[in-house]
Amino acid sequence: MATVLIPLAKGFEEVEAVSLIDVMRRGGIEVIVAYLDGEFDTNLVLGANGITIQADVSIKTVIADDFDMIVLPGGWDGTYALADNRKVQSLLKEFKEKEKVVGAICAAPYALNKAGVLGDDYTCYPSVEEEIKKDGYRTDKMVVTDGNIMTSRGPGTALCFGLEIVKRLVGVDSYKAVKEGMLLDFCK
Amino acid sequence: MATVLIPLAKGFEEVEAVSLIDVMRRGGIEVIVAYLDGEFDTNLVLGANGITIQADVSIKTVIADDFDMIVLPGGWDGTYALADNRKVQSLLKEFKEKEKVVGAICAAPYALNKAGVLGDDYTCYPSVEEEIKKDGYRTDKMVVTDGNIMTSRGPGTALCFGLEIVKRLVGVDSYKAVKEGMLLDFCK
Repeated sequence: MATVLIPLAKGFEEVEAVSLIDVMRRGGIEVIVAYLDGEFDTNLVLGANGITIQADVSIKTVIADDFDMIVLPGGWDGTYALADNRKVQSLLKEFKEKEKVVGAICAAPYALNKAGVLGDDYTCYPSVEEEIKKDGYRTDKMVVTDGNIMTSRGPGTALCFGLEIVKRLVGVDSYKAVKEGMLLDFCK
Repeated sequence: MATVLIPLAKGFEEVEAVSLIDVMRRGGIEVIVAYLDGEFDTNLVLGANGITIQADVSIKTVIADDFDMIVLPGGWDGTYALADNRKVQSLLKEFKEKEKVVGAICAAPYALNKAGVLGDDYTCYPSVEEEIKKDGYRTDKMVVTDGNIMTSRGPGTALCFGLEIVKRLVGVDSYKAVKEGMLLDFCK
């Protein structure tokens, strides 16, 4: 069974995180949600729009070898926290080195870039490319895959991003079943 | 400020609930999430795909006059709980009588039908109409509005459902701003 890690930091974008978790679990992926270590350690993580979600484990306990992929939801405050967290940055580098898949959506490709793991071609939320790099920024697709690095644009593309991850880690049959079951005709 | 109530029962569909809350809050609506009273009263509510969300208040404390609309997320287990809960059923009837707006998505129009508040025309998750009524079931739109009753189809239409609620309760300028900000071009 494919296993995916989602680190959740205060200020994460809720639609992005929940869309990714929900689609991937429906697609047969084991998804583990990790909260960050910090001054007030708690598994209840507050999102950018006031929605609090319960995480599964502390990021402190996470071992890269247990996972096939790491994917970061967006939201600026959450993204800055992921970019500043030593354990998350070290995991991103280790996933890249071990040729696991690394993903990010919306503002979060900024955290991939800070770890030096972003590919040549990528996408992100419009205007965030100014904080990352203008070369290779693409606007023609909901999801851009460059080798092992997958990126996507924002809340409106999060379900389709989850579907592309299911296609890659599980297969096209699961992709088709989830797409039909969740009424995702708009995902091309 | 428009105010919307979302009752959340164990087994709710997470993408639907979170999409509605997120879009409506971005659109300038005050959204209050209520957990159901039950054997194990807790404000942490477990969804159909293993995601736990923290609710704001107990449904016991809710007064209809404080709200402009009630909207129910889907998920079968959550829907049956909403259909069986006396306070939720009584609120649905009171909202209808007082000409407030009543909404439901996916399986949840079943709970509206049980309360006798469903309109003539409606939509729901494909095949759920067999548990509701075949007359008036429409498949040509993501969101069907019949007077004060608004219904929608499933996870893939939840963001667009939230947008239509913003258009109705706040106005078209807010609708356009949220649609652009969340990259929801596919909502027609």
